[in-house]
Amino acid sequence: MKIVTKTAKFTNPLYLESGRILEPYQIVYETYGELNEDKSNVVVVCHALSGSHHAAGRYEGDRKPGWWDSLIGDGKAIDTKKFFVICTNTIGSCFGSTGPMSKMYPSDQPYRFKFPVITIKDMVKAQKILFAKLGIDKVEAVIGGSMGGMQALRFAVDYPGFAKKIIPLAATHATRPWVIAFNEIAKEAIIKDPDFKGGAYDPKEIQEKGLTGLAIGRMAGHISFLSPYSMDRKFGRDYVPNEGLYELLGRFQVERYLEYNGYNFSKWFDPLSYLYIIKAINLFDLSNGYEGLEEALERVKSKLYLISFKNDLLFLPEEMKEIDLAMKRVGKGDLSHYYEVDSDYGHDAFLVEVDKFANYINEILEGKR
Amino acid sequence: MKIVTKTAKFTNPLYLESGRILEPYQIVYETYGELNEDKSNVVVVCHALSGSHHAAGRYEGDRKPGWWDSLIGDGKAIDTKKFFVICTNTIGSCFGSTGPMSKMYPSDQPYRFKFPVITIKDMVKAQKILFAKLGIDKVEAVIGGSMGGMQALRFAVDYPGFAKKIIPLAATHATRPWVIAFNEIAKEAIIKDPDFKGGAYDPKEIQEKGLTGLAIGRMAGHISFLSPYSMDRKFGRDYVPNEGLYELLGRFQVERYLEYNGYNFSKWFDPLSYLYIIKAINLFDLSNGYEGLEEALERVKSKLYLISFKNDLLFLPEEMKEIDLAMKRVGKGDLSHYYEVDSDYGHDAFLVEVDKFANYINEILEGKR
Repeated sequence: MKIVTKTAKFTNPLYLESGRILEPYQIVYETYGELNEDKSNVVVVCHALSGSHHAAGRYEGDRKPGWWDSLIGDGKAIDTKKFFVICTNTIGSCFGSTGPMSKMYPSDQPYRFKFPVITIKDMVKAQKILFAKLGIDKVEAVIGGSMGGMQALRFAVDYPGFAKKIIPLAATHATRPWVIAFNEIAKEAIIKDPDFKGGAYDPKEIQEKGLTGLAIGRMAGHISFLSPYSMDRKFGRDYVPNEGLYELLGRFQVERYLEYNGYNFSKWFDPLSYLYIIKAINLFDLSNGYEGLEEALERVKSKLYLISFKNDLLFLPEEMKEIDLAMKRVGKGDLSHYYEVDSDYGHDAFLVEVDKFANYINEILEGKR
Repeated sequence: MKIVTKTAKFTNPLYLESGRILEPYQIVYETYGELNEDKSNVVVVCHALSGSHHAAGRYEGDRKPGWWDSLIGDGKAIDTKKFFVICTNTIGSCFGSTGPMSKMYPSDQPYRFKFPVITIKDMVKAQKILFAKLGIDKVEAVIGGSMGGMQALRFAVDYPGFAKKIIPLAATHATRPWVIAFNEIAKEAIIKDPDFKGGAYDPKEIQEKGLTGLAIGRMAGHISFLSPYSMDRKFGRDYVPNEGLYELLGRFQVERYLEYNGYNFSKWFDPLSYLYIIKAINLFDLSNGYEGLEEALERVKSKLYLISFKNDLLFLPEEMKEIDLAMKRVGKGDLSHYYEVDSDYGHDAFLVEVDKFANYINEILEGKR
């Protein structure tokens, strides 16, 4: 599989949903496989909150491959022998595309809190501009999970006919207060952390030491990504050996897991980017700019394949089902397909239980669904 | 309804499950109604994590009555014209019973981290000693929700025959990693908060200013006490007026609610007590000290009325159902009753949807169930 990572720079302003502009800006993206002559074999993959453009393959020296490597590759469900797969790092993120720690032109200082609020609509608009620059006006499919699924849905509504197929997984049509509440833990923990310094932190220092506030926010995230069932299987009531059962700060294994992953995460993800991206997730409502969900969906011309996960406690299956029902109400039932994956893993199933839906995605891309 | 608040002091050591001792110690308790001559009309009510002995009635000048006032009172489901209701503040808590901020005899300094870890078994043992001192050897019922339900279950197993009826609500037989994970947010946020000062904080200062770490932990708690459905009803996607939609720190109503309640809570609850009580909850396993759940339940002589709530996302209905099934397996099915309240409110339903189960509890106490 051929992997290429590139950076595209744009000097024209990006007009944002908020009314503000981003200028200049850049987008880092990665491609897998080869673009065919008539540019008709493109599959766009959109990443989630903490993801990046590195969706598949392995960089030299890396312990782990890209976040959806089990799905994307030669002979895999998203077959890179056949498709040219593109994954961009969303604007607002911290892996190379313009975000809050990018320099605020013409100064050489980072934006920090001066960075404009970004929405899912903006992330998608920026990608669309990139694709146009690459000469890609139509794609076979847009696919993504969680926030990636939100982007896929926005592509369906904002750019009707751009993609033949839209495949959102583990997402919603509008972020519920339940999810905003989990994000609030992160927001509050980050902004109140003295080491965050009101946004004036030294990023190198944080990469070395981590940031407690972000770690705590990420721990709350992990809870929402799992389920009581997957936690039972992963940890049960196991206690960390050598930490006294009757010591106040002795830990159950689940506590050690959360701490380890939370603090580790806080060393490689930028806290301001985290704040901006959860804001984008909180603001997401497919009906924004329309009378309601139905009016938004009336624009859809792509086939919609809605994939949810039975015990997803962050974005409940019923939320994806509502999209399917609304599509039927606006007379587009023939375009809409709803598929519930039988899983008790929780939200993260879209990342870790790929074997449960890889076939389905492959059949969609092969035109068998 | 006659309300009396008292403090009982004990100079004999309390032998704790950890092997440590508490000496001396005191228990604050409140009673409602009148004890009859043969002391046969006692109902014990056990409080949850943030509760106190003040279960019913209203103190002069108070805005709110006790936490289960809608259930306890003259003519109410737990009828104080008939029953003498006792509610004690658990040891480890911060409303008058001995806890981590109590003076560590013979010094006049508080225990702080030197306070021994307390278990649900210890909380129940201390109550049992208090009741013996009051000449109460048998009670009509022990009832409680959440951590109060854990205490009720411990009464059933540790003191068989002490209560005729045991009525745990919204509880479990063993705390799952899912719940420990929510508590971990609080633990980490508290101990890492610089204002916590490694436990050396000035309690008066915290009562005035609150403590961010405890506030954040409580916010995580609130999420686990609610459900996506109750949050939809309470907040929807409503935004705080005058806080810009595209301002990074502008808030949805659910965020304002969590912040308000979190910070408010951190002014009236002691952070060390919070750490000790969540530890007790984490450690709770009814089978501790026995081969397993069945062996523990073989000891039960009381009638068991297990009440769960359909969309309780903290302690799932299936966890209470497991107790009922285990009772059947040990041939005590005739003593066990399982009742699932149809509610989508979440865990807090045991506090806020009292009308949905008040009748059932009344019928149990009246001998009609």
